[in-house]
Amino acid sequence: MRIDILTLFPELFPGPLGGSIIGRAARKGLFSVNAVDVRSFAEDSRGTVDEKPYGGGPGMLMMPDVLTRAVESVKSERSTVILTSPRGEVMNQQLASELAKEEHLILVAGHYEGVDQRFIDLVVDREISIGDFVLSSGNIAAMAIADAVIRLLPGVLGDDESAVEESHSMGLLEYPQYTRPPVFRGMKVPDCLVSGDHGKVAEFRRVEAEKVTRERRPDLWEKYLISELNKEVRK
Amino acid sequence: MRIDILTLFPELFPGPLGGSIIGRAARKGLFSVNAVDVRSFAEDSRGTVDEKPYGGGPGMLMMPDVLTRAVESVKSERSTVILTSPRGEVMNQQLASELAKEEHLILVAGHYEGVDQRFIDLVVDREISIGDFVLSSGNIAAMAIADAVIRLLPGVLGDDESAVEESHSMGLLEYPQYTRPPVFRGMKVPDCLVSGDHGKVAEFRRVEAEKVTRERRPDLWEKYLISELNKEVRK
Repeated sequence: MRIDILTLFPELFPGPLGGSIIGRAARKGLFSVNAVDVRSFAEDSRGTVDEKPYGGGPGMLMMPDVLTRAVESVKSERSTVILTSPRGEVMNQQLASELAKEEHLILVAGHYEGVDQRFIDLVVDREISIGDFVLSSGNIAAMAIADAVIRLLPGVLGDDESAVEESHSMGLLEYPQYTRPPVFRGMKVPDCLVSGDHGKVAEFRRVEAEKVTRERRPDLWEKYLISELNKEVRK
Repeated sequence: MRIDILTLFPELFPGPLGGSIIGRAARKGLFSVNAVDVRSFAEDSRGTVDEKPYGGGPGMLMMPDVLTRAVESVKSERSTVILTSPRGEVMNQQLASELAKEEHLILVAGHYEGVDQRFIDLVVDREISIGDFVLSSGNIAAMAIADAVIRLLPGVLGDDESAVEESHSMGLLEYPQYTRPPVFRGMKVPDCLVSGDHGKVAEFRRVEAEKVTRERRPDLWEKYLISELNKEVRK
């Protein structure tokens, strides 16, 4: 997979997309990330990329011609063009899986103030929001989307990491986990986890995962119950 | 405000927190961001920070003693300790506003595989998730939380930017916006926006904002309708 990130701040990339598990995968050639400087597609010598909105109002909008030229410089038939936008579909793991099947993602890091709608109508395939909070620019949103997608590409996660992946995809939040030391500032690891009894460990984890999900995320808990009921019905 | 970010990858910071509007505010001294290298709090000479989970299972967990020492190196009575975690409250603009009132945030960039629960019980005040998608580490989540909070600090946004802020906080997604050129690849800016008729412009924007919200985010649309009904009742 190739990911082009269109941004006014190309120096921020690869940034977090260049280190750790993700960086290791980049060095193995499993994907490539390339930052495209939108400002270099400005028409005037001052590098103008934004202008005031028609109809008045505060803030500046990114101009459609500049952005379109930037996209066209990297786009092919196999590209999917994504704009980070507060108006977009809300990012989730299902969407990350869908995007991980693409060959070429073009991520346009939107300005908070917005972009001209005609650019969206002409070349944007999907608008994606990482959540209902406002960022100072789309760069961090583009990083988040790219990271979530890259780690799902074949070969990026090792076997052990992939197993972690599966343990997270049951639709419940994770149970509490413990590691060494066995006693930390007077707090002991729960007995059942050091008992060696696999049945007890599994029961502890199921009960705790259900509890934390019910308490913290009634929305996920409801979905989980429905999927469990459906399994029962199918039996 | 001071923000300490506890991470295994201190070289990623300030990164996006050092540029644009946010970087300008940092140079004005409106806040400071400091990366703390968690690995330097390991006890052994190899810098061990994670171990296998008790009870078995894949992945490695961050050790409670290492993380606690790292937090205690920067924590005071006035600190709020936040762990980025898929189990946390989901980040939103309301939460960003709450956090913007704090004096000192300590953001712990969690490992995807998790951290020892006793660290959470002992020193973490809030667990925050940026959404229902999995990242390769908590660093991008920490960047997103910090950015959303910083831009709400007094003096960070200019007057013009603050006005944009207000226009976004009505509970609707944003209407389509247009800027120069007036005709772009055959697509014209809607007539009413260039008419100079402020009433028509306001009507266009209200209708379009309601339309896009209804179509894309029934959840937000429902909240908006309820708040509008409440206003009616109060009259």
